[in-house]
Amino acid sequence: MLSPKIKYLLYLADNALILGHRNSEWCGHGPILEQDIAVTNISLDLVGQARNFYQYAASEIGNNTTEDSLAYLRDVREFKNCLITELPNGDWGQTILRQFFFSTYQYFLYTALKDCNDEQLAAIAEKSLKEVTYHVRWSSEWVIRLGDGTAESHQRMLTALDNLWNYTGEMLIPSAYEKEINEALAIKGADSLAEKWNRKIKEVLEEATLPVPQSAWSQQGGKEGMHTEHLGYILAEMQFLQRAYPGVEW
Amino acid sequence: MLSPKIKYLLYLADNALILGHRNSEWCGHGPILEQDIAVTNISLDLVGQARNFYQYAASEIGNNTTEDSLAYLRDVREFKNCLITELPNGDWGQTILRQFFFSTYQYFLYTALKDCNDEQLAAIAEKSLKEVTYHVRWSSEWVIRLGDGTAESHQRMLTALDNLWNYTGEMLIPSAYEKEINEALAIKGADSLAEKWNRKIKEVLEEATLPVPQSAWSQQGGKEGMHTEHLGYILAEMQFLQRAYPGVEW
Repeated sequence: MLSPKIKYLLYLADNALILGHRNSEWCGHGPILEQDIAVTNISLDLVGQARNFYQYAASEIGNNTTEDSLAYLRDVREFKNCLITELPNGDWGQTILRQFFFSTYQYFLYTALKDCNDEQLAAIAEKSLKEVTYHVRWSSEWVIRLGDGTAESHQRMLTALDNLWNYTGEMLIPSAYEKEINEALAIKGADSLAEKWNRKIKEVLEEATLPVPQSAWSQQGGKEGMHTEHLGYILAEMQFLQRAYPGVEW
Repeated sequence: MLSPKIKYLLYLADNALILGHRNSEWCGHGPILEQDIAVTNISLDLVGQARNFYQYAASEIGNNTTEDSLAYLRDVREFKNCLITELPNGDWGQTILRQFFFSTYQYFLYTALKDCNDEQLAAIAEKSLKEVTYHVRWSSEWVIRLGDGTAESHQRMLTALDNLWNYTGEMLIPSAYEKEINEALAIKGADSLAEKWNRKIKEVLEEATLPVPQSAWSQQGGKEGMHTEHLGYILAEMQFLQRAYPGVEW
């Protein structure tokens, strides 16, 4: 049995790794070169954050666990990422909207974590927050541009909202291990995450002339290892090298 | 270094396995239930043929090699299947047309192999030929139905022809190991494979009111392990279980 703290670190790491992997699928396929590079750089930021959390988790687990064994040798049921991070990218608008939803969540979460009583976690959160601040700005500007753009881009953003909204609630509903850690590490502001997230989302969607969906129901399961069919395919591809050539190094 | 005979057996096996795997992607997605079952049954036939060829190859290789290690533990560059078998399915018409092209090839190949001087290979070919005879009939009937069908189905078959034609030549151009085996096993009719294949294809395409493409140029490489980008993704998915849980059994 993993301790709540290890579960929590893996949760933070898995979110960043899987979303980073999805975004990396855009590399070489972006709508324009500048944005191809932007979304790929966000991938790099996220994979970098994942590494920091995995390294911390590995040192807590011991037994020769490494960042690589955590990323490449766990199976689907051991991954704790929110379902929204593993969904297929869809079109550019859907990728952007997911990034905005998730980066906004990470922004308020890391803001709370940077003042927690676990020094190492606080330091990673503080460092990551600089990157995430940019991710929020970048993605929110795109949401506004596309939502308040052409009839076509507006329609695509409505479709993206429809596809993603029911996956947003999971981020904001704490699992058992999150509740334990919020208390154990004295994470202030964890209680008001949902409120802050909803306010920011509402503000940007309104500026983007997009409706704020009213449905409060949400898909859930990722935090406890119950995933969509998509994660298995991600892992099969992402883990192939380490699975086929165990212990291989560059 | 593998002997020409082992390479040849792996070539036969890999063709059947990879095409069988591609067809199996239709399971649950066929246009009507009866045809969903038909294409899935063809997958089962092909995977069964692959097993027979792999088992024979494994016994020739020795060293605890098994059908499973050959299917699940070789990497891209060791696979010898023709490129056409690993291409994405495309729509129903393209899947059908590929099946017709490849089954027709297998039909004339197995017909020649069943009289070769290697008893075990001849026996597998003879057994497989019954299945392939049905695959040719099934796929050729569909090619005719779609080619000589509606404007939409005709157009789709033209697109499929365009996508697949330049991958058909590879089947008919013997690699070094095929040439050696054709001689060593006294495979009569190997020389006239291309002629027979072209005659049958012409006959069916004409009945389907589809043009016979004139391009003689062909993509090549699969027989020597040089594959398209698609095979790696197939193997990542197909091999995940054995890679992640080495030696696992049902």
